[in-house]
Amino acid sequence: MTAEAWRVTGLHHVAIAHGDDPVCEDALTSLIGAADHTEEGPGFVERMYELGGSYVQTLEASGDGLVQRFLDNRGPGLHHMAFEVDVIDAALADLRERGVRLIDGEARSGGMGTRIAFLHPSAFGGVLVELVERTPATTQPPSGEGEG
Amino acid sequence: MTAEAWRVTGLHHVAIAHGDDPVCEDALTSLIGAADHTEEGPGFVERMYELGGSYVQTLEASGDGLVQRFLDNRGPGLHHMAFEVDVIDAALADLRERGVRLIDGEARSGGMGTRIAFLHPSAFGGVLVELVERTPATTQPPSGEGEG
Repeated sequence: MTAEAWRVTGLHHVAIAHGDDPVCEDALTSLIGAADHTEEGPGFVERMYELGGSYVQTLEASGDGLVQRFLDNRGPGLHHMAFEVDVIDAALADLRERGVRLIDGEARSGGMGTRIAFLHPSAFGGVLVELVERTPATTQPPSGEGEG
Repeated sequence: MTAEAWRVTGLHHVAIAHGDDPVCEDALTSLIGAADHTEEGPGFVERMYELGGSYVQTLEASGDGLVQRFLDNRGPGLHHMAFEVDVIDAALADLRERGVRLIDGEARSGGMGTRIAFLHPSAFGGVLVELVERTPATTQPPSGEGEG
């Protein structure tokens, strides 16, 4: 398979994990404004605070799952950073070809209609990195998908 | 003192602390491109990778200091996030007035000619947050400072 061109186009978000302590959400609301988007994931509530084209994401543990396990191991704090890419399928194919260790071998659905995949922390020396592709579905209905 | 207006205008950078493991820098260089800026701080080398108007910052421990202490306590990983503000002196005065705990009560010189200050992690529920003001000195000589 020939690697398709792709590139990292921006810093999509930085994510914070926390438990039921409201301090972080209150501080973000006070400094940036209220969360622009909230949705539930498995064992967590995700909130997105828009900030100059990027986001601060908070992951509040609401039950057992990845976020609670992170909190048990490391306590509240920065959880991961997310790079926006133009074509996530091409990115994953290329990274796989280069032997980069991935958590998600294929893109899956993320918040706000995005497509996402996580790299393994070992690929970044201990930092959890997510790739995010914004999809047309976030701004328009997906009816144009079949064209061309 | 009446609080002057100020606001957070963007996500300036997210910072990663690491030791002498080259994996993180190599991965960033591979995905984003080479570091745009390198300078030395007390006990660390700081590199900035520009990414769509924001930066990924790496802090490589080069001796005793804050970065090495972080590594001793938590290991390599995400270290802090930095918000860009329009007027850092007004931000600090306002936050002090609101009782927000600060590490730096006054702005000090940061990398790339910026003015910076750190909030205490307790102000964000365990997340270290930096404020950054870009100064005219980063793009032009400071000769215009006295005008008006």
